[in-house]
This record gives sequence, C-alpha cells and structure tokens, in this order.
Amino acid sequence: MTDIGARLGEIVGAEHVLTGDAVSADYAHDEALTAEPVLPAYVVRPASADEVAGVLGVASQTRTPVTARGSGSGLSGSAVPRPDGILVSFERMNRILEIDTDNHVAVVQPGVTLSELEERTAEAGLVYPVYPGELSSSLGGNVATNAGGMRAVRYGVTRNNVLGLQAVLATGEVIRTGGKFVKASTGYDLTQLIIGSEGTLALVTEAVLKLQPRQPHQATVLAPFADLAAVARAVPKVVGSGIGPLILEFIDALTMGAITYTADLQLGIPDQVRDSSQAYLVVMLENRTTERLDADVEAVGELLGELGAADVYVLPGPSARRLIEAREKAFFTAKSAGADDVIDTVLPRAALPEFFAKVLEIAQGNQTLIVGCGHAGDGNVHLAVFQKDPDIRYRVLHALFETGIGLGGAISGEHGIGREKKRHFLELEDPNKIALMRRIKQAFDPDGILNPGVLFD
Amino acid sequence: MTDIGARLGEIVGAEHVLTGDAVSADYAHDEALTAEPVLPAYVVRPASADEVAGVLGVASQTRTPVTARGSGSGLSGSAVPRPDGILVSFERMNRILEIDTDNHVAVVQPGVTLSELEERTAEAGLVYPVYPGELSSSLGGNVATNAGGMRAVRYGVTRNNVLGLQAVLATGEVIRTGGKFVKASTGYDLTQLIIGSEGTLALVTEAVLKLQPRQPHQATVLAPFADLAAVARAVPKVVGSGIGPLILEFIDALTMGAITYTADLQLGIPDQVRDSSQAYLVVMLENRTTERLDADVEAVGELLGELGAADVYVLPGPSARRLIEAREKAFFTAKSAGADDVIDTVLPRAALPEFFAKVLEIAQGNQTLIVGCGHAGDGNVHLAVFQKDPDIRYRVLHALFETGIGLGGAISGEHGIGREKKRHFLELEDPNKIALMRRIKQAFDPDGILNPGVLFD
Repeated sequence: MTDIGARLGEIVGAEHVLTGDAVSADYAHDEALTAEPVLPAYVVRPASADEVAGVLGVASQTRTPVTARGSGSGLSGSAVPRPDGILVSFERMNRILEIDTDNHVAVVQPGVTLSELEERTAEAGLVYPVYPGELSSSLGGNVATNAGGMRAVRYGVTRNNVLGLQAVLATGEVIRTGGKFVKASTGYDLTQLIIGSEGTLALVTEAVLKLQPRQPHQATVLAPFADLAAVARAVPKVVGSGIGPLILEFIDALTMGAITYTADLQLGIPDQVRDSSQAYLVVMLENRTTERLDADVEAVGELLGELGAADVYVLPGPSARRLIEAREKAFFTAKSAGADDVIDTVLPRAALPEFFAKVLEIAQGNQTLIVGCGHAGDGNVHLAVFQKDPDIRYRVLHALFETGIGLGGAISGEHGIGREKKRHFLELEDPNKIALMRRIKQAFDPDGILNPGVLFD
Repeated sequence: MTDIGARLGEIVGAEHVLTGDAVSADYAHDEALTAEPVLPAYVVRPASADEVAGVLGVASQTRTPVTARGSGSGLSGSAVPRPDGILVSFERMNRILEIDTDNHVAVVQPGVTLSELEERTAEAGLVYPVYPGELSSSLGGNVATNAGGMRAVRYGVTRNNVLGLQAVLATGEVIRTGGKFVKASTGYDLTQLIIGSEGTLALVTEAVLKLQPRQPHQATVLAPFADLAAVARAVPKVVGSGIGPLILEFIDALTMGAITYTADLQLGIPDQVRDSSQAYLVVMLENRTTERLDADVEAVGELLGELGAADVYVLPGPSARRLIEAREKAFFTAKSAGADDVIDTVLPRAALPEFFAKVLEIAQGNQTLIVGCGHAGDGNVHLAVFQKDPDIRYRVLHALFETGIGLGGAISGEHGIGREKKRHFLELEDPNKIALMRRIKQAFDPDGILNPGVLFD
C-alpha cells in the first residue's frame, strides 16, 4: 500500500481502505448510460465527519482528487471517480440520526436511502416529500444533484426541503449551515450553494430535512389526450385551479406502451381510445379526508374533460400504485429497450408544446428515435434518445439543449451536469456565469481536489 | 460636479445623478433604529440593467463604494450608503414587466413595491405570497434581505418564491440566473446565493417570481393562552395537524395591548380572559371553498382548546383584517413606543419555550424591557428591546443572539445582518464560515465595491 493508502488507513481503519483488486467494479460507475467506468486508486469508507475531514486533509496535502459516492444511482456521471483518486463511499454513514416530530425535521447521514427514510417517517405520520424515481438513492446523492421527482409540483425539489447541512470543506474544516428552521437571513446561504453542486464544493456529512404531515388519502386520475401539445396546454389550467396536485406527469404513447408492457399492467383503456391518444396525463391527488379527495377527483375530472381529454379514468389503488411505480422505473425501461442516452431538460411549462414540436423536428432531421415522459407541472422533460452514433447523438443532444435554453429553460432539471453533459454546459451557458462559477469553485476548493472533471474541465 | 459625477451623468442622464444639496435626507437611511444616517456622494437613478452595468463599470474603475436602495424599509442598515459612495436608487426601475398566467410567474423590476404587485396579481386571480409587514417595500429589497413575513409558514420566504434573477456583477457583466421554471440542476444556484446577500454580491435588476392561485376564502382565529410557553407548545401540533395555516403568529400581552390600542381595535375578549392571558396565538386559514374553510376553522378551534387555549375567537372579517394590519405595523408601534432596537432571531420552533424563559432572564438581569411577537410557525421571534444605554443594549442583544444560536438558531430570520448586527455576526458565527463567505464575496466582487461594511468589516 502506498503512503497515501497508509495515511487513509490510519484515519478510517485499514479495513475501510480498498485498493487494487479489492475495489469492486461497482465503485467504477453510476447509472449514467454514456460514462466509461473508472476504477479509483482508493475507496475509503469513513464512519464520521471527522474521518471525512481527515481524508480530505490527506487529499489536500497530496493533491489527490476526491469523488463522493452515495448509492451510485446518479445519471450524469458525477460519482465516477478518477483513476488516481479517492472515492469516498458513504455506505457506513447510513444512520437516521433523528426524526424530530416537534420541529418536523429529520437529521440524516448521507448514506441513508430514501426508502429507509420513507419507512421511518411513515411511523411518525410524517413524510419527506421528495420522490425521485429511485428509492434506493441516498440522501447525500439527492443533495448533490438537487434531486426532484414526481412530487415536486406540490412540494418542490431537494433544495426546497433541506434546511441545513453539515459539510466538510476541501481543506478539512467541518461546518454546519442552516439548521432546524425554515428561514434565515444571516450571511450567504451556504446550504443552497452546496445543494446541487455535485460534490465539487464540499462533502456533505449530515442533512437536516424538512418533513411534512403525511396526507392519508390519495387518488390517481389518468387522462388520454390526442397529442403531447394538448397535454401541455392542459397543464397550466390544472396547476392554476388551486387543487394542488401531488403529481402531474405526462407520458407519451410509446413510453406508456413500454412501461405498461414491462410492468404487465392493464389500465382498462379501450383500444379505440388508446389508438387515438398519443399522450397521457397522470394526476395524483392527496388530501386529509376522503370527502375532500373525492371532491377534488371530481373537479379534476371535469376540468380535464373541458381541456380535451378523450376520457378520464380514476385508477383503482393497486393499478395506480403500479402505474406510478412503472413510471418511476421508466429510466430502466428505456435502458433495457436500448436507449443510448437520457436527458431531463427543464423549461417554462407553457413552452412545452413548442418544445415538443421542435423535438419531433430534431428527431426526424437526425433519424433518431426520441420518446419520453416527464414532470409536466414542472416543465421537466425526460427524453430517451436512441441513436448509436456518438457524433449524431452529440448533435441531437446539443440541439435539444439549445432549444430548451432558447425557450427559457436549462439543460437539466434534476439529473445534474456531471461529466456527461459538461461539454454541452460549457458550450451553451453564458461564459460570464461559467467564469463566476469557477471563481466560486476556487473559493471553496483552491487546489481543485473535489470531483475534478465534473461541471468544469 | 466631479469626474465621477460627470461619467455617471453620461450613463443615466445628468438629471438622474444627484449630488450635494440635491441629495435629500431620505437617501441617508433605512428603517434600522440604530443606524446613523449617511448622505452619499452620489445618488444615481438608473432606468435599465445596462445603465446599472455602466454605473458599476465606473464604480469598479474608480473603486467607489456602491449601495443599492429600494424603498428604504430595511431594518438592518444595509441600504445606508457610504459618504464617499454611490447610492443606486431603483425608483425608476419600477415596472411589472409581465404577469404570466400560464407559467404562474411575475417578472418585475427591483423598484416595484409589494402593494403594486398585490394589485396586479389580484386582477389575474394569482398571488405572490410573501407578505413581510411592510407592503411599501420593494421587491429588490425583499430579494436582498430574503424577506419573510407572516405567510412564510405556508408559502415560505422570498428565496422559496424567486425563480430567477437578472443581476449586474461588480465588474459590470449582466447575467441571468434561473428562469420561469421551478427547478434546475445545471451548475451552482446563483439565484439562491444572491438572494439574502444584502447588496454585497451583485445588484438585482429583474426578478422572476413564482405566483400561486389566490385562495378566495380566509378566516382568522384568535386564541389567548396563559403564557408564551403554552403558545409555543401548541405550535408544533397546529403545524403537524396538516391543516396548513396561512398565518401562525404569537403576540405577547404587552404587544397585543400596544397594537390594539394604537389601532383602536376591540377584539371582544372579556376582561377576565384578557387578565389571565399573557400571550395570544393568531391563526389565519385559507381555502378554495367556504365549506372546507369552515371545517378547518372548527378543527383548529377544537385543537387549540385541547392545547390549553383559554378560549377561541373566530374574528369577523373587518376585525381580523385590522388585527393583521396592526400586527404588520408592530414595528412602527414599537418604534413610536420608544423601542431602542428590534431583532428577529430565528430558532427551531420547539425551542421557543426555552428561548422565552431565557429572554425573561436576560431582560430581568439587565433591567431591560423586552416585548415581542413573531412568526411562531417559523420559530422567528421579533423582539423590541427598550434600553437606552448602548453598552447594556449591546450586551442584551449579544446574549439574545447567543442564546438563539445555542438553541440551534441564527441571528436573523428575515431582517438581515446589514451594518447593524454585523459585530454580533462576526463574533458569534463560526470563523470557518465567515472566512468562506469572505472568499465567496471576493469571487463576486474582487475590489470590494459592493456595499462595503455590510456583513463584513
């Protein structure tokens, strides 16, 4: 073992430093479809913030790159380590430190998964309302990418639900930001700056999460529409109604076919309706009482009818659950169908019809299959791109991002930039903002040891 | 006119550069009770982001300090200029550029006031839900201080309701951050970093604000309690009920007496109840339908009874409106009663009883009158401190802040640090965080021209 390995072993215990053949292939990748796996020189598994600080101290002194890893379910390659670097795996920092039912917060270590948190909060009648598709994802990873998911239309994304952090700076200092309170105007908001920074500014060792009262009653409505543009036109009306949907998803016909086929799910839609519907809107509602829920379902049903839905189906509980689960697994459906990349451009939701029209043009002009679904209420479009040729695929993605930005949007709503969308980011983003972000990076990480190659070259 | 004045005149027009006697006393102060007024060398009134960029270019080249000013209603002295500096007054950049009813956003210039925005959004059936007490405050000022207010318990504070900014950097570049979308994971969140930075990082020239459907029905419930601790114990239960109050305020008996006296407001509380009640909880509810609202009022009433309220009063519309207005004016009531300072410490809401007990000790130990009200649901305690001696007052404030921080809180929930709380901030905050914030400041403003003396020395 090298000198660095020995020093890391003194900090976390030799059995928690892996090198050479002991580094399993799992540590070499996340779920980004395009990222090349890279085995790190060292995997370290710290047990505390102090140990993380020690590891960063060694990294800082030896100018060794450091990449953080939660569950490895990211989609942008930001958990792919450097071959000469240290991968800090948070698998041992996986405790829910507190469910505080008076302040309605949970305090968690970064290795805690969403499913573990879901189980513990349910016992307390509370919920952490951020539901990105993958419940095996870690809270540390959620913070790093500002994870979103289907319930963001009601509860916002990770940054709206994290109140504070404990984080270790590149130079080894442990800081606490924010706390068990919902607002502050006391200096710069370091919590918000670290959220979504993809491991390039600091390593998060604890997060204070805002919890909500768990609403006991839910119902799901499915509405087929003639096309995506019709769905997109309906969305602002549903949001504006004040009914406050928990979920507002669009699914195109091909994706709906694929996910229902994969899940072996019958939704009871007559062939005639299905054949004339190119897009679906899924609306999930929740409420404190069944009476209010029923009234909301009726109101949404009427509204969707007025807005041009071919029909409106209130899905029975088990079907609804399976449809939402199948939608959550849409990424894996796309992956197993042979998708070559997935993107999640975000744009003003009223721009969705125009965006979809442009997507069709880009797909046809490049002989590329592009199908999708997404968070309609958020204007967050998840597209699977089927194109083997990397040069054409690059052009297609670039055109999609450029179109989204041109309509007032941004490259990624919730996946992040990572290594895999970096080239597009650096080419399409305002150079003044890139320069400013580089200076902020420098303010946090003067030696550039934190996740080099992510966001910036 | 000096060379600088002439150059500023070329940019904004000579009639919009004020110097010498033309600078009225209004430009010398905000509403901070303790800040010494300072007349700036120049007042400039730009009409566009390009003009602001030009002004900052001159300031940058000549190393001239720049302070931004909206309505001047701030409470921490961050709009107090430097005697050798430029005050950028946004009074001419006061247009609502767009109320976008499809994307549910408003795009505003920084000089727009909350009352102007309220009027325009009401016409569209929408609402910008951030209601700090002062409706004459400007959106630019709200962004600079991360303004909060009574409705934050339901809708969050400014940072939760601003989706994007146009801002001018110290070096004169105009950037746009975020946009008409509710989430992004595309580089560092510059929007969130600039919000609450009190004019020290950039000058905001446009803001994209998230609007909500306006709920048509509101009701207000007033509940007297034996003491503040009893109110504080009730708060987590009300929040946890899932009823989702719009407002959840506590008011101590002295403050209630003062604001109802000032407003000449009779609440119909029998003398016997009033004499045995040291604190009040005000709960405002809103809903889409009167039926749901009535049911919520009943549920809250029952809950408050169980939680120890001496009685529960549903206030008729006009009384409710006047009580809320009187509460909004509590600062001015305290000011006219001779308060020597006001603070707005924020802490975990479950720590309120312990905090109130400590406040009493600090008040008694320093022969200082401390009374207050505040946003109970947010743990944001507004205290008026009556103590003429500046040294004792400094000790009292320091003890209050230290106590709040010790209970897991922060110095200010929504007023900001400005010039007036800076000494406490620099003494009580983690030096590692202060050092990091200074490096961030340096990344934005290498020459230190933006609001020097605010946040840092």
